[in-house]
Amino acid sequence: MDIVSQHKCFNGTQTFYKHQSVSTGLPMTFSVYEPPQAKSRKVPVLFYLAGLTCTEETFMIKGGAQRYAAEHGIMLVSMDTSPRRTGIKGAAESWDFGHGAGFYLDATQQPWASHFRMETYVVHELRNLILENFAALPDRIGVFGHSMGGHGALTLSLRHPEIFKSVSAFAPITAPSLCPWGQKAFSNYLGSDQSTWAQHDASELMRARKTPFPQGILIDQGLEDEFLDIQLLPHHFEAACWAAEQPLTLRRHSGYDHNYYFISTFMQDHIAWHAAILNK
Amino acid sequence: MDIVSQHKCFNGTQTFYKHQSVSTGLPMTFSVYEPPQAKSRKVPVLFYLAGLTCTEETFMIKGGAQRYAAEHGIMLVSMDTSPRRTGIKGAAESWDFGHGAGFYLDATQQPWASHFRMETYVVHELRNLILENFAALPDRIGVFGHSMGGHGALTLSLRHPEIFKSVSAFAPITAPSLCPWGQKAFSNYLGSDQSTWAQHDASELMRARKTPFPQGILIDQGLEDEFLDIQLLPHHFEAACWAAEQPLTLRRHSGYDHNYYFISTFMQDHIAWHAAILNK
Repeated sequence: MDIVSQHKCFNGTQTFYKHQSVSTGLPMTFSVYEPPQAKSRKVPVLFYLAGLTCTEETFMIKGGAQRYAAEHGIMLVSMDTSPRRTGIKGAAESWDFGHGAGFYLDATQQPWASHFRMETYVVHELRNLILENFAALPDRIGVFGHSMGGHGALTLSLRHPEIFKSVSAFAPITAPSLCPWGQKAFSNYLGSDQSTWAQHDASELMRARKTPFPQGILIDQGLEDEFLDIQLLPHHFEAACWAAEQPLTLRRHSGYDHNYYFISTFMQDHIAWHAAILNK
Repeated sequence: MDIVSQHKCFNGTQTFYKHQSVSTGLPMTFSVYEPPQAKSRKVPVLFYLAGLTCTEETFMIKGGAQRYAAEHGIMLVSMDTSPRRTGIKGAAESWDFGHGAGFYLDATQQPWASHFRMETYVVHELRNLILENFAALPDRIGVFGHSMGGHGALTLSLRHPEIFKSVSAFAPITAPSLCPWGQKAFSNYLGSDQSTWAQHDASELMRARKTPFPQGILIDQGLEDEFLDIQLLPHHFEAACWAAEQPLTLRRHSGYDHNYYFISTFMQDHIAWHAAILNK
């Protein structure tokens, strides 16, 4: 685990790391914001999963989250959106598939299955690495994300509710089986069997469960988001939550688009949401 | 004046523009954050001058300033750090000179003098363009910046105190005549006559004046800044302020470096500083 760079920020420490990943078989990069409270005690951890084309830097540079993390004593962790330089043919040809588009799942289909194992990487390898090397509380872990990373936050928390105690998302892909981004990714990574897809589709997962997050789920969605009607489809997830009796706060915001200018506007609310659950 | 992109942000509007500049004879790019208050009344304007290699995007993406601008009702304006694609031999060879390194002055030496006219561009052309096209108060304009842009904020405000009512800086170059960055820029843009250099050196300008900013100047400086001792030299400006009886708040912060993680940490204080003067 090598330090790429380190910066003091809001009296805490912002660090970028590189390490050799067992899960993906390749070097991976991630970032950690340690709030000032982590100097003297263990603190809750909040994983942020970024969207298509992003890296471990995007959230830390654009999200404006460190101020609120420092206020609430929450550690922030973000990571690259896929392994890079996989050498797989076709992995670098699209901005919405392959490199930068891991979809936070373990591919089952070759040639992707050998490296594209982001679920195992995030949920097990990186989580364990954080718990072993930082002042992080193992039973107080939350997850949030944006777009493809919002899909990741919803699906990973629904697949591993014993690990993730709080969940929220900005403009998430909520029904990947029904949208072009999800269909492209799932058909390549998971193959053509739609029953496998359902295991990585937030709306399908929610339908199969009963109130997995009694403390609720927070989703913010801009109504000028250019991907809203084709790719994100939050009404599918809303209906699934209704059927599962899952409390959901889905806020639709007039005028906001898919950009980090939208995300940063509501970042304070998301950190406070997680802190209220994780700091309890 | 063409809109490149526009985003709702903290209930205001973040817009990126491109226009044909008379001053530089080339297309220029700039960005404006209009706070929500600007929908119903004219508001003060705060110009942000970015550092070496930066563009009109850097501050708006990394600074985290929009939240505070929205709170205080301040319009934010930032611009590219030089004309681009000048076609001048040598303009694209260095990261600390030429493209991305306009130093907020009007070059007097050819071949630079034909395009590198950032002082006229910022102080006159862009200011007038803002006053004519946005809900901006002409007599309530402040300026701040980072590194090379901190040099710009100090020198432009000292050269035009009738225009800029408030000034602050993050890790500014304060004595460019004495540091490698400044010497490289000044000798190329201004020639070898050191008396000309003094007209664009914040410490020299301050020494020649008497309390130009009675309401004070705010400077934040990180003590782990890798450029502190060679390029920034704030003690020269501090001594000049002392001699000129200019009130100065120079805060030296343990552990912070030259990065936007430092800048964003103290952004709230800077916006509040300007707002206290400009909103009075």
